[in-house]
Amino acid sequence: MKRLGTVAVVGVGMIGGSIGQALIERNLAKNVVGVGRSQASLRSARRVGAITNTTIDLNRGVADAELVFVCTPVAAVVETVKQAAEHCPERTLISDVCGLKRAVVGPLDDGLARGCRFLGGHPLVEGGQNGVLDARADLFDGRIVILTPTVNTRAEDFDFLADFWQALGAVVVKMPPEEHDRAVAMTEHLPYLSAAAMSAALPEKLFRLAGGGVSAATRQAAGDPSLWADALTLNRDNVLTALEQYGSQLAAAHAAIRDGRRDALLDILTLAKKHRDALGD
Amino acid sequence: MKRLGTVAVVGVGMIGGSIGQALIERNLAKNVVGVGRSQASLRSARRVGAITNTTIDLNRGVADAELVFVCTPVAAVVETVKQAAEHCPERTLISDVCGLKRAVVGPLDDGLARGCRFLGGHPLVEGGQNGVLDARADLFDGRIVILTPTVNTRAEDFDFLADFWQALGAVVVKMPPEEHDRAVAMTEHLPYLSAAAMSAALPEKLFRLAGGGVSAATRQAAGDPSLWADALTLNRDNVLTALEQYGSQLAAAHAAIRDGRRDALLDILTLAKKHRDALGD
Repeated sequence: MKRLGTVAVVGVGMIGGSIGQALIERNLAKNVVGVGRSQASLRSARRVGAITNTTIDLNRGVADAELVFVCTPVAAVVETVKQAAEHCPERTLISDVCGLKRAVVGPLDDGLARGCRFLGGHPLVEGGQNGVLDARADLFDGRIVILTPTVNTRAEDFDFLADFWQALGAVVVKMPPEEHDRAVAMTEHLPYLSAAAMSAALPEKLFRLAGGGVSAATRQAAGDPSLWADALTLNRDNVLTALEQYGSQLAAAHAAIRDGRRDALLDILTLAKKHRDALGD
Repeated sequence: MKRLGTVAVVGVGMIGGSIGQALIERNLAKNVVGVGRSQASLRSARRVGAITNTTIDLNRGVADAELVFVCTPVAAVVETVKQAAEHCPERTLISDVCGLKRAVVGPLDDGLARGCRFLGGHPLVEGGQNGVLDARADLFDGRIVILTPTVNTRAEDFDFLADFWQALGAVVVKMPPEEHDRAVAMTEHLPYLSAAAMSAALPEKLFRLAGGGVSAATRQAAGDPSLWADALTLNRDNVLTALEQYGSQLAAAHAAIRDGRRDALLDILTLAKKHRDALGD
């Protein structure tokens, strides 16, 4: 990828901050403008080397951008992209990193103001709890980034964004927004719900014994309930389907244990091990 | 704890090996005799400093032991303890480390041959995949070890074993065998079953996207299906109850998402976060 002039990162948390750090550390952009809601959080981002310039004014922040990354939670992406398109240079490509794609690609795919275009993206990385303080320049090394072009996407935009992510170390996978949302219902929303349901079911008197399996199995339940409620609601049908597929395996295991059918139980556990071994770390 | 002469460790995997390493490294025993099924695995155990002497003959291995640790899987504990009692010095204390306590304490609590006594124990540590190669002298540092005395247990045996584990860095918790088994159904068996059901439900085409939440959420499914089937079967009633408590939280979340009741969903997710935050790491 040729070196860029100015990249704008709108919302400088763990992912936005890691994009900035990677760009700066690999010398892939001259300026990384961080757009945030408070000068205090932007100062943190600058201190950890995630951005070179800061502003709380979106319109000014994107004014010189060759590429705009909207890294806000899903609920704010559509409006932020539309506003950025009004104020960035003409024909600028705008992307995002949020974990649902139908909800943002749908309203933005028809075209933006002034010849700007939107192309959705989603890096598959586990969230931190500390925002930009969890940012790492190597966060995307070897990690998958899903890009979700549509029939309206220009090939050169896809290629440009794919090159960009590959320059940050990522492996790019192309997928329609609908397929993306079906996949993440299973790979991200279901695991969170499972952790949350188990944590909610855990009696307080067992907390001190939770050193082993239940500690790992509930870790994701520490995430922000409100952000997760948004994601689960936006991906409603896919989440319900994933819960039902999972539930039928749980029900089969329950019945096998209840009825003392060791072979039936072993079939499920053996299939589970085969799948898990195939996943690798 | 005063320094012991000979401790026998029967079954030198991760836990047995870690007991041996901790004893040797902290100079708490003169000899640690490892009893195993093959000379090859015992050589590995000696190479990693887990034992000082090796034998595949249980009767010889326990002949001079002041304390015997049976570290086999649960299915072999009762017979191994009984055989050890026939061949170790009179009035020796024998303990174990397996994850279920009713199944072993019940048959052994009435007394053993030649004045030997059994007192059950269970260190709450996550299992490795590589047996004795995962052993660590500090494995028990700050970890909970549950001891399960009964009305038949002598106070001096409990105190001796509690001192022993504390000398290895553990925090000792006392609990009746029944309560132990109820607790681990929730803290260990349910998390494994959840991981296994999710792994079994995961379609192969999603494996490459499993970098995030589902990878962590299914990790335990890599465990040995046969050993887990034994444990789940032996702890049947408690496991079914734990599955049902978990299932009712999942069902409540499913209904809230289906019916668009964001507040009800948020109640579950907020309770989950409160519990998880209280667990610590």
